[in-house]
Amino acid sequence: MDERSALAALAETVGGAGDDAAVIDGLVLTTDMLHERTDFPAGVSRYTAGWRSIGASLSDVAAMGGAATAAVAAYGAPEFVPEELDAFVDGATDVCEAVDARYVGGDLDHHDEFTVAGAVVGRVDDPVYRHGAAPGDGVYVTGTLGRTAAAIREFEAENADRGNTLFRFEPRVAAGRALAPVATAMMDSSDGLARSLHQLAAASDCGFEVSWDRFPVDSSVDAVADGEADRRELAAFFGEDFELVFTAPDEEVAAVRASLPVQVTRIGRAIEDGVVADGEPLPDRGYSH
Amino acid sequence: MDERSALAALAETVGGAGDDAAVIDGLVLTTDMLHERTDFPAGVSRYTAGWRSIGASLSDVAAMGGAATAAVAAYGAPEFVPEELDAFVDGATDVCEAVDARYVGGDLDHHDEFTVAGAVVGRVDDPVYRHGAAPGDGVYVTGTLGRTAAAIREFEAENADRGNTLFRFEPRVAAGRALAPVATAMMDSSDGLARSLHQLAAASDCGFEVSWDRFPVDSSVDAVADGEADRRELAAFFGEDFELVFTAPDEEVAAVRASLPVQVTRIGRAIEDGVVADGEPLPDRGYSH
Repeated sequence: MDERSALAALAETVGGAGDDAAVIDGLVLTTDMLHERTDFPAGVSRYTAGWRSIGASLSDVAAMGGAATAAVAAYGAPEFVPEELDAFVDGATDVCEAVDARYVGGDLDHHDEFTVAGAVVGRVDDPVYRHGAAPGDGVYVTGTLGRTAAAIREFEAENADRGNTLFRFEPRVAAGRALAPVATAMMDSSDGLARSLHQLAAASDCGFEVSWDRFPVDSSVDAVADGEADRRELAAFFGEDFELVFTAPDEEVAAVRASLPVQVTRIGRAIEDGVVADGEPLPDRGYSH
Repeated sequence: MDERSALAALAETVGGAGDDAAVIDGLVLTTDMLHERTDFPAGVSRYTAGWRSIGASLSDVAAMGGAATAAVAAYGAPEFVPEELDAFVDGATDVCEAVDARYVGGDLDHHDEFTVAGAVVGRVDDPVYRHGAAPGDGVYVTGTLGRTAAAIREFEAENADRGNTLFRFEPRVAAGRALAPVATAMMDSSDGLARSLHQLAAASDCGFEVSWDRFPVDSSVDAVADGEADRRELAAFFGEDFELVFTAPDEEVAAVRASLPVQVTRIGRAIEDGVVADGEPLPDRGYSH
């Protein structure tokens, strides 16, 4: 069973597991596991690992329209090197501070492979789910696409500093809160923009019509992409970016746009069914963890 | 750096990391990582693994005197076998139901070694910390000691059913809440009773005087122990039980005892300094993860 089938099976069993985070009793709770082999390529600093591990869960809270309160991490490593641990905690602390949350510690465990599970709790009064998009809504994305894909290329090229910079991201918690009153459906783009659109479409029972030339591709992608096809691959399919993908009536987005702390780009609109880019079906593929 | 030194270093950096769980803004948040090599010996079912992974974090909430609200798990495994995943979710769900909390899903990750990180959020108005014990307080423990040690022996003897039964435990959330108004200091016994007493003593700047014959040793220990020295080892040093160890004025414990959902045993009293059992120093050793 692959991860998507397994997650679908989980969602049938457990309420809320089909969204970015679980909402219960006014609280939002989420966890993400990252580990060396698949999530931390050579060159990733422990500071960046701390930032990114906690950031992934903060992004889930953002996707529900919640405020982030506190984060913990379970840190598994073959050995506990004080400088590495300090750097990890610094990264976790800094990403929390960036979104007005607090990193409050966690668990340590001897593990053959460097493995981190972050968990974040937040509060949410009026959660935004993946369902709720309706034909006619605009479909939008925050920030830019492809930073993580570009980071991986930079790590491969042994440009570790550049890779680490691109690998850290600001979780869109403030934007998510500002968008919550107007967004009809929302999720983060961690599986890639294309797959996110398919997931929103499936949950909302609608479709999307988008334009490739509207996608806000990060300038870092242009620096590493090998032609237009590769550029599209990195921006729309690679995934592991943590931007918000959401739908909303266009006039309502216009009304809150000035209060948003980040650029928001309209990439198309919701339709009755099908997910198409410039009239062609947009493949349902993306990052599989 | 061993785990205790690393945790101590973490505690210096991060507020709250020195206690069983972090308390912030009326919420209590905690995480624990368990994995195959050190936490799940051969014979442990996925149902038990789900129960125990989440139970460990529920126990941390109990140790703070909190109410548990919701739990998530990050589940890492080489492959996702539907029956295993279902059994894990059932175990996680059932341990939550046992303490009036809800299991609300989590994350899946391909991982070479079966690895689980549970996280639990709860609410706490008046948290109980490890500091606060004072000379003259009684020192108490809930339930019985040594079940996990006995379980390991049963797994080694290939008595998997017996091992699994002993490996599951009821997190003492209800007891923790009932004790919170009277306990002066509290933690769970996951590092073993002996080490827990040393940790309470260090945090509270006091000592303890206890009696071996008052320790509530589980009957399962008698079934596997090889003589009295081994029995003591399993009951007081092996650890990974999840009972509450706490201090309180004796008359206040007497006043709430009838309302407690579990047996509570007075094993001695707090003194000025030193941790002694029957007049002999009690070694500060126990479970290291």
